[in-house]
Amino acid sequence: MASEFPEAKARWSERELIRNISEIFAEANSDLLVPIGDDAAVVARPDTPLIVTTDMAVEDVHFRLDWSSAYQIGRKVAAANLADIFAMGGKPKYLTVAMAATGNEELEWMLDVARGIAHEAHIVGAQVIGGDLSKSKKIVISITATGEIGEGKRPILRSGAEIGDSIFISNLPGWSSAGLIALQRNIHGELIDFAISEHQAPSVDYENAEQIAFSANALCDISDSLLIQAEQIAEASGTCLEIDGDLITKHPEFAELLQVAKTLNVSVFDLILSGGEDHCFLATGHSLKGFEIGKVVAGSGVRLLHVETPQPGWQHFL
Amino acid sequence: MASEFPEAKARWSERELIRNISEIFAEANSDLLVPIGDDAAVVARPDTPLIVTTDMAVEDVHFRLDWSSAYQIGRKVAAANLADIFAMGGKPKYLTVAMAATGNEELEWMLDVARGIAHEAHIVGAQVIGGDLSKSKKIVISITATGEIGEGKRPILRSGAEIGDSIFISNLPGWSSAGLIALQRNIHGELIDFAISEHQAPSVDYENAEQIAFSANALCDISDSLLIQAEQIAEASGTCLEIDGDLITKHPEFAELLQVAKTLNVSVFDLILSGGEDHCFLATGHSLKGFEIGKVVAGSGVRLLHVETPQPGWQHFL
Repeated sequence: MASEFPEAKARWSERELIRNISEIFAEANSDLLVPIGDDAAVVARPDTPLIVTTDMAVEDVHFRLDWSSAYQIGRKVAAANLADIFAMGGKPKYLTVAMAATGNEELEWMLDVARGIAHEAHIVGAQVIGGDLSKSKKIVISITATGEIGEGKRPILRSGAEIGDSIFISNLPGWSSAGLIALQRNIHGELIDFAISEHQAPSVDYENAEQIAFSANALCDISDSLLIQAEQIAEASGTCLEIDGDLITKHPEFAELLQVAKTLNVSVFDLILSGGEDHCFLATGHSLKGFEIGKVVAGSGVRLLHVETPQPGWQHFL
Repeated sequence: MASEFPEAKARWSERELIRNISEIFAEANSDLLVPIGDDAAVVARPDTPLIVTTDMAVEDVHFRLDWSSAYQIGRKVAAANLADIFAMGGKPKYLTVAMAATGNEELEWMLDVARGIAHEAHIVGAQVIGGDLSKSKKIVISITATGEIGEGKRPILRSGAEIGDSIFISNLPGWSSAGLIALQRNIHGELIDFAISEHQAPSVDYENAEQIAFSANALCDISDSLLIQAEQIAEASGTCLEIDGDLITKHPEFAELLQVAKTLNVSVFDLILSGGEDHCFLATGHSLKGFEIGKVVAGSGVRLLHVETPQPGWQHFL
């Protein structure tokens, strides 16, 4: 999903705000190896660098209580944080969870949020070590994940893409946003229900991310959208990311997602390029363990080849 | 302030919920040195233990936009997190900030929140290294602070109080809750305005906390209330905390707070014992750099001496 604060509606652009905030928080003498602007921050430590990231989810903005179970909500917020650590080439270790609730929830509902977070943390061997509970009219869950870069490894940044790299995705994005549209229109069906479950709680391929990170030049997770994240890599690394629609159509899941797109009467490329929250991974490098969708070339921005859809900048549906 | 979820109103007690959640998040093979239940979690690391804590503040629950400036709100939420790190005998290093906003705020208002957080972080030499921005109908700010235990030092827990210890406070609590009452009743005056400013953004004596931690047996910050925090130390360490009202009346700030209490027509001991959010520090030990208010004795719970007010458990005003 694109910025939650589109420039036309908010009194400031998210980009302008974050640039200003980064200046306020900048320090001359810092042990910050990777500052604000990548998937997570990385700080130098005497032993191994520490990675820290935070992600907040708000009821009726990121999830709806009538669309998702407590367990799914817990899984989804945890996944967003864990994916950010993997997207730096790191391994998550500790989570803290701050949650606001009304107090009218069932005890079991509250515990199911915790169980969903614990489930996702267990997959990657991370542990919840602390938290805070607040009162609020809407549920808010804010997780901070701390991880580390393994011995002999390095953080993988958005700025690492090199001309000549191939572009890879760990999985086909678009399922989560297809699921959101299906929920909004109350459409069901076998494949549609899979899309819905991916929106409720994405099944993130953490293991694949670890393997990709092993030899990637640039890496990030697709939390906003493939296009937005590709633009970020292009900008950070001073290159152009050329994404080939013909290659995307050869992805083993493409035919299924196309079928879902037809049922929903939306463009499959709109789902793939502009959908978000699947938290699959976008990487550049050579012979990575992912699916190749293009090349890093000289230039700037993202160039779409063989995609029958307006170029970046069009008003998409999300 | 006591629990935001009083048992009579919420469908679960905060204590029951946290006990259940702690079980869900418990791990058999963990490098967690201090688990959920103290001011912050402490994890073992190859070099020096890492301390992590998180604290969330919600508009109209923890602050009101017509009562506090953006700068004060930023300072206050940061202070709550930083105080928790000092309360473990640690030193804060890194902060991450997740914030939800409507998008209708002025850019300068948003930046003032960041400046307030940066101000408080600078005092203690900590740095904001990352964040997340979300949309929400009410402002929510969630900060996670990471800190470390200095070389040759140890985490100071609530469970460390020993029979024979004296009880110390770093500063006199009660100013913040006096300020809250004054704001609610729109009462002003020189001393009252000081109380109001302490409610808007407490001036936390971090340096004193560091000195106290150097030789304290037990330590925590007074985020809820002196009574609640004393009960937590008593329970965690299997002792009784005997707090002497006569000693409290000798505190250099007592006469001023008494004057404020009279103006507000509330009990000064109610302010001191049941007010919260001053984030001053409560410690036990010998000859600590603080103000002595009692003794750790055999038994359990908190015993109040020479205090003309109902015993713990009464329904207080907050």
